[in-house]
Amino acid sequence: MITQELKIAYIGGGSREWARNLMGDLALEEQLAGVIKLYDLDYQAAVENQIIGNKLTARTDVKGKWSYQAVERLEEALDGADLVIISILPGTFQEMASDVHLPEEYGIYQPVGDTVGPGGLVRALRTIPMFVEIAGKIAQYSPGAWVINYTNPMSLCVRTLYEVFPKIKAFGCCHEVFGTQLLLTKALAEVKQITGVKREEIRVNVLGINHFTWINQASYQSIDLMPVFTEFADKYYETGYGEEEKKDGLPVNDGKLPERVKFDLFKRYGLIAAAGDRHLAEFLPPWYLKNPETVKQWGFHLTSVSWRIEHRKELAEKREKWIAGLEEFELKPSGEESVRQIKALFGLEELVTNVNLPNRGQITGLPSGAVVETNAFFTTDSVRPVLAGELPPDVQNLVFRHVLNQETILQAASDRNKDLAFRAFLNDPLVTISPLKARELFDRMLANTRGYLPGWKL
Amino acid sequence: MITQELKIAYIGGGSREWARNLMGDLALEEQLAGVIKLYDLDYQAAVENQIIGNKLTARTDVKGKWSYQAVERLEEALDGADLVIISILPGTFQEMASDVHLPEEYGIYQPVGDTVGPGGLVRALRTIPMFVEIAGKIAQYSPGAWVINYTNPMSLCVRTLYEVFPKIKAFGCCHEVFGTQLLLTKALAEVKQITGVKREEIRVNVLGINHFTWINQASYQSIDLMPVFTEFADKYYETGYGEEEKKDGLPVNDGKLPERVKFDLFKRYGLIAAAGDRHLAEFLPPWYLKNPETVKQWGFHLTSVSWRIEHRKELAEKREKWIAGLEEFELKPSGEESVRQIKALFGLEELVTNVNLPNRGQITGLPSGAVVETNAFFTTDSVRPVLAGELPPDVQNLVFRHVLNQETILQAASDRNKDLAFRAFLNDPLVTISPLKARELFDRMLANTRGYLPGWKL
Amino acid sequence: MITQELKIAYIGGGSREWARNLMGDLALEEQLAGVIKLYDLDYQAAVENQIIGNKLTARTDVKGKWSYQAVERLEEALDGADLVIISILPGTFQEMASDVHLPEEYGIYQPVGDTVGPGGLVRALRTIPMFVEIAGKIAQYSPGAWVINYTNPMSLCVRTLYEVFPKIKAFGCCHEVFGTQLLLTKALAEVKQITGVKREEIRVNVLGINHFTWINQASYQSIDLMPVFTEFADKYYETGYGEEEKKDGLPVNDGKLPERVKFDLFKRYGLIAAAGDRHLAEFLPPWYLKNPETVKQWGFHLTSVSWRIEHRKELAEKREKWIAGLEEFELKPSGEESVRQIKALFGLEELVTNVNLPNRGQITGLPSGAVVETNAFFTTDSVRPVLAGELPPDVQNLVFRHVLNQETILQAASDRNKDLAFRAFLNDPLVTISPLKARELFDRMLANTRGYLPGWKL
Amino acid sequence: MITQELKIAYIGGGSREWARNLMGDLALEEQLAGVIKLYDLDYQAAVENQIIGNKLTARTDVKGKWSYQAVERLEEALDGADLVIISILPGTFQEMASDVHLPEEYGIYQPVGDTVGPGGLVRALRTIPMFVEIAGKIAQYSPGAWVINYTNPMSLCVRTLYEVFPKIKAFGCCHEVFGTQLLLTKALAEVKQITGVKREEIRVNVLGINHFTWINQASYQSIDLMPVFTEFADKYYETGYGEEEKKDGLPVNDGKLPERVKFDLFKRYGLIAAAGDRHLAEFLPPWYLKNPETVKQWGFHLTSVSWRIEHRKELAEKREKWIAGLEEFELKPSGEESVRQIKALFGLEELVTNVNLPNRGQITGLPSGAVVETNAFFTTDSVRPVLAGELPPDVQNLVFRHVLNQETILQAASDRNKDLAFRAFLNDPLVTISPLKARELFDRMLANTRGYLPGWKL
Repeated sequence: MITQELKIAYIGGGSREWARNLMGDLALEEQLAGVIKLYDLDYQAAVENQIIGNKLTARTDVKGKWSYQAVERLEEALDGADLVIISILPGTFQEMASDVHLPEEYGIYQPVGDTVGPGGLVRALRTIPMFVEIAGKIAQYSPGAWVINYTNPMSLCVRTLYEVFPKIKAFGCCHEVFGTQLLLTKALAEVKQITGVKREEIRVNVLGINHFTWINQASYQSIDLMPVFTEFADKYYETGYGEEEKKDGLPVNDGKLPERVKFDLFKRYGLIAAAGDRHLAEFLPPWYLKNPETVKQWGFHLTSVSWRIEHRKELAEKREKWIAGLEEFELKPSGEESVRQIKALFGLEELVTNVNLPNRGQITGLPSGAVVETNAFFTTDSVRPVLAGELPPDVQNLVFRHVLNQETILQAASDRNKDLAFRAFLNDPLVTISPLKARELFDRMLANTRGYLPGWKL
Repeated sequence: MITQELKIAYIGGGSREWARNLMGDLALEEQLAGVIKLYDLDYQAAVENQIIGNKLTARTDVKGKWSYQAVERLEEALDGADLVIISILPGTFQEMASDVHLPEEYGIYQPVGDTVGPGGLVRALRTIPMFVEIAGKIAQYSPGAWVINYTNPMSLCVRTLYEVFPKIKAFGCCHEVFGTQLLLTKALAEVKQITGVKREEIRVNVLGINHFTWINQASYQSIDLMPVFTEFADKYYETGYGEEEKKDGLPVNDGKLPERVKFDLFKRYGLIAAAGDRHLAEFLPPWYLKNPETVKQWGFHLTSVSWRIEHRKELAEKREKWIAGLEEFELKPSGEESVRQIKALFGLEELVTNVNLPNRGQITGLPSGAVVETNAFFTTDSVRPVLAGELPPDVQNLVFRHVLNQETILQAASDRNKDLAFRAFLNDPLVTISPLKARELFDRMLANTRGYLPGWKL
Repeated sequence: MITQELKIAYIGGGSREWARNLMGDLALEEQLAGVIKLYDLDYQAAVENQIIGNKLTARTDVKGKWSYQAVERLEEALDGADLVIISILPGTFQEMASDVHLPEEYGIYQPVGDTVGPGGLVRALRTIPMFVEIAGKIAQYSPGAWVINYTNPMSLCVRTLYEVFPKIKAFGCCHEVFGTQLLLTKALAEVKQITGVKREEIRVNVLGINHFTWINQASYQSIDLMPVFTEFADKYYETGYGEEEKKDGLPVNDGKLPERVKFDLFKRYGLIAAAGDRHLAEFLPPWYLKNPETVKQWGFHLTSVSWRIEHRKELAEKREKWIAGLEEFELKPSGEESVRQIKALFGLEELVTNVNLPNRGQITGLPSGAVVETNAFFTTDSVRPVLAGELPPDVQNLVFRHVLNQETILQAASDRNKDLAFRAFLNDPLVTISPLKARELFDRMLANTRGYLPGWKL
Repeated sequence: MITQELKIAYIGGGSREWARNLMGDLALEEQLAGVIKLYDLDYQAAVENQIIGNKLTARTDVKGKWSYQAVERLEEALDGADLVIISILPGTFQEMASDVHLPEEYGIYQPVGDTVGPGGLVRALRTIPMFVEIAGKIAQYSPGAWVINYTNPMSLCVRTLYEVFPKIKAFGCCHEVFGTQLLLTKALAEVKQITGVKREEIRVNVLGINHFTWINQASYQSIDLMPVFTEFADKYYETGYGEEEKKDGLPVNDGKLPERVKFDLFKRYGLIAAAGDRHLAEFLPPWYLKNPETVKQWGFHLTSVSWRIEHRKELAEKREKWIAGLEEFELKPSGEESVRQIKALFGLEELVTNVNLPNRGQITGLPSGAVVETNAFFTTDSVRPVLAGELPPDVQNLVFRHVLNQETILQAASDRNKDLAFRAFLNDPLVTISPLKARELFDRMLANTRGYLPGWKL
């Protein structure tokens, strides 16, 4: 058996679950090994990850042996890397609170606020300069490396990487489509009484943009799942499928939802929207987000940043216990596909899965260069999109609006053009307030994030 | 001097001013002559036009000698025609009243209601089958003829002609851009004290879709008019330029406006929106159309269909007087360019002017095939668009939404698919009510126009 | 274990090895079963295939149980089919002899003469009307069926199917790329001493048109095969790799070649041309085909049609023995991928392999709609091309010339326009004789195939 | 009347007729005046032009008053220019002799050798670095200036300007189409007995690349000239129209030709090739250039570089006489359109004429960015191509081959890649010799021009 030796640069991850998930998955994989350089703005967090990682490697039940090394400079992490993983938090919870909650004062509710909507767009303005820097350094220190991004807003992060360094070998990964595949296994069980199917066995054709991806063809073996989902959606349209997942009486972020938004969109458009309801609702006019009551009726919730802070604390405590050896890291597959993707890129298997890449024709009808989400074929040193076809004009219209808004935001970030950024803001479907009110909100939000907007005149 | 003999088929025009304008312009033009076959669903109206036209020809002060002949069948008009002019009213004032005023019950105000918005989309559904029929007959009876359309909704009318008969030599004409050129002559006079300039002398690059066209370059001789307009717009931003044109205390439809919407859009986007404010406001979220008070503040008005009925009566009385010989048709140029276009197509001059044509690359970034408005070069048997370039992403986004909505409506009309039509309806920027309310409105509007929707299940 | 029941229509195959290969492969496959309707212009040949096939099914060592039924009408074969396979011989050996050998009188040598070159183009003119008919009947009798074509000229056959019936679910298969994968396994063994690798394990990115496909990325596990092939090609550039395969002292059609043309093209262009040398040479100016001596020097041969006739006789004798039970059909995998493709289309596995499909963006820089060869992802009811990227401009130029020539031939066949067909003929790289001589040759060749050109004025 | 003041930078022109033509045309034009900075590698030549120009300005019969100033540095000429004119000779007659005559040793004959063919391609390699420098300096010193190029190879010169400085406002002008318009006036006179028509009155739609442009629509007033030209071409197909223009028994370069190549191409392709026969023949396989006898039969000639040297001497003598005041510059319109174009760009008139510009959609089916020749609409600060449509596939194929060859040459020049340049060379239709012989010729030609290939490894 071959073991592929790799040098990985991990950017960010100090405060996110991604690092932990990846560590676990790598620990379970015997065909990969090597060095992981950890870089985080919070160096201490990187050091903690180093300790956790190396403890893991030392365990006898761990098959994947990696050496984790915290580094203080980005260049140090990148230099000579075969693979770069980017998973940063752009800014702090303070900026996130402004993104998510300030719009509420104006009647605009966002369950996540990290992709589109007022929060997503302002977050993008803050994130783009970080990705400009990262892309520039990759071009200099590891131009041949593969680059995987997990940071949101996904489309604009990947778009920025390619804008700055067009030859970058980058793609973006997100697990939202997996959740929809899982839902399809449940529909299959309900409607056809076929159980025990794994989500990877559900084959889907996805097309759209991250967090607003659509499925127009789905199958399990020879079974067409579109009529299956029709029956399933009809049955659970009113009630939702199951309850919202809770813990200690509170909704779990990224937890199970009754999928009522998804059913409603399916009835309306005939395609399956392949992301969590909390994300989907943000891409549309405030049909599902008019006010907290409407949100509740549709069976999902608005994640408060205070919840995130609380949740972060729990994670931190867990981490401290791991470091102190009071608790042991539990080894179980995360459900993410990073490790399989890495194996494919380095010649150990082949894989077709969904990723975010600049449009080179994989979606007809969306602009060339815009970052879109479709299936791609992973093999040795190669990620090539699979042609996904075209969205019908009604759905294309919903998607295109965000694509052009993202282009506008990118241009505004490049030019440090506040007025242009506002025009994108005003054109977001959630912004249905008057232009005057919208401008006031925008100015306040921008002021709150000004520390991350170098060179802007605010 | 050459006189070009032509056979023209005039479809519609029984009740519209277009016919009268064209008759006048043709009477003033000595290089063209021939036969005009008049076809109208209301045969009597065609007969009246025949009488008026032939009286005109008989006058000694008339240079353009035409024989007008009312015909009872469309085929008769088209057979052997060199040129076809389409200027129909799709439906009656009854349907128009539903288009324009029913949405008011739901808080949606439309000053015109013939292009986009609830009224424009429903009008399109009613008009498309008529254009399917016309295009089919042109393919059969006069496939080599040039076809000029004046009917609204312009983009979808022209789009339908090409959809049904791809080799048709059709284009659509609209005078809205002329009004903006006229405004630029006023800016030139105000800012630069250059007076006496004709609107044709203002050279503009236009790009967009009919009634939502944008100017990104404007000049008079060597003077760049963009900074001139900036100064002009700043000066009159608050007050508007002049008063709304009134007659007997009532606003004149298509009359002068203080152009405040145009100034506001210019400040916001940096481009000149080249249509009347009443049209422009309909393409945007209800920034200018929130309610009648807002409309008033922006200096324009909502045309009621009852006004149109009243106005039509006046025209009818005038026509009766002409027929009875009690009054004489006053000969003066209408300001339209049809006659110059016709002369160019038949080899008598050359002309660059704005028209509506399927996009074959004249606008980058809008879909191929969608009907767009740009300049075109007219010469013998040839109308070729001039490359207009690309809209910036923020404005492109405003336009693209309507382009895809129009594609959706066309498909819905072809498939007689009510749900699909509703998805376009719901996606119109003026429709900010809830999906449920929107559906109710849509159903009521469609019921009101059902007589014009053959084969639909309503 | 699932067994998928299918109805297959097999068009042609009476005289070709394809039918036999498929029968064998199906016999070896236990997850598929059903009915195969055999249609051939030569009904007797279809009946013979029916007998052979059913004998096979009756054998106890055969896992795939199919019922073979010869039918007399194409409609009968197609009606209700899930899958249609087209593998016809367009015309007889008499026309093929004219295609291949008549140009020799003018100094034009063709080793195959079925794709491009004078022979290929005239063959195309003869084949297109047959595919027009087949496509029309598929549209009528089995519009939802998957259609696999094996007939040459591949690109124009598939192109015609889509031209006539744009919604057809057709693709074209060819094993030439497999041969190049096999060659890469040999290079791997020679250069890296890695042996026992199967050709399916060689991952290649292919882009081009059938029989003129190029590989710009190749790997085995984590090994980049491009430098491996460079070393291999250098080593064997002068001598070739091995001898030309012979039988009874005569070269074997489709047999092994020393690959000198492939090595020469690789040195020149840096890409691996992925078809047999005999095909490749026909797409280029007569660098390798100047005269029989040049052909010999490059290590390949010109297949004479008399050889084909002889070879056909052997096959016929074999078939007679099978029918008479004097000999038994030997069961072994053919090396073709049809069965795996069929399994994937009907939900039994997944597969990425190279196929011929209209360009929808899989190759940048070649026209939309032209039939190109790239990898595609096969899954349930779905064949989606994988984005292959772009050829460098020098190689793109070699390929584009044939693409446009094929478009010209298709248009000429549609319009029955002899002059237009000649313009394509004259533009073929092998046609370096004077226009006058070329016209004489063209006229003679067309006269020889006139029986297959219904409606042409010759 | 307005007089527009301009600053013009004239690059080159020391040794070319263009400068003289422009001086004369400017002298005749009263609406333009200003300063012309003359820059030439041969400073003395620039000084001579300065003297001639200023003498002209001093004349009382001269309406256009310009101050001519020779400058020693390119930057000095460009700084603050409103308009830049580029008309350089890339290299000397020595390199030109190698371009044109060395291939004759290999049986390749070129009547001009400055656009395509072995000579044109090598000339391009030598010219591109010069245009890289010029474009870079324009970007720095006069980024807003309009730039007109007259240098050959036209397409690659303009292509290089845009490659280096994408925002450049450059276009290329060539009078070859004018000659074809003139021929159409003769056809009109012959066939329709309509005389006295000016070439500007012939309206043509042109599409193609410089020196290989095609006319698919032509008219005079309402007369379709395509059938007129058909009759004309039939009549003169065998004999040619008139004799080749001679002076002192020798053919005049750029002089009148009997147009037999043009007639032959028209009969073959149905379109009018709009350049001189000497240029056209170079874009095709050696149909018209097989050997000097063939050339003679088709009624044109091979211009020897010795003739050019002789002719240059005559011009030089003329210039000396002007400077010495022994002879007076004769004022007459040159027939070029530069002055009208300049007037249009600076707001004094409008114009539709043919120019060379990067393809932004004006020609469907040729690659975006490639420099193509079509009509364009000139107005204040604006040159916008008119949509020219698409060439039929057979003609598109002839043109596309050169477009991709030019892309290859540009890339080879950028990368200083000799092998890549050779691949373009080998793919030129005139290069029908063996690859080995072709390489020998290429190497010798490149060696002869090595002084102009900085940074190449030769």
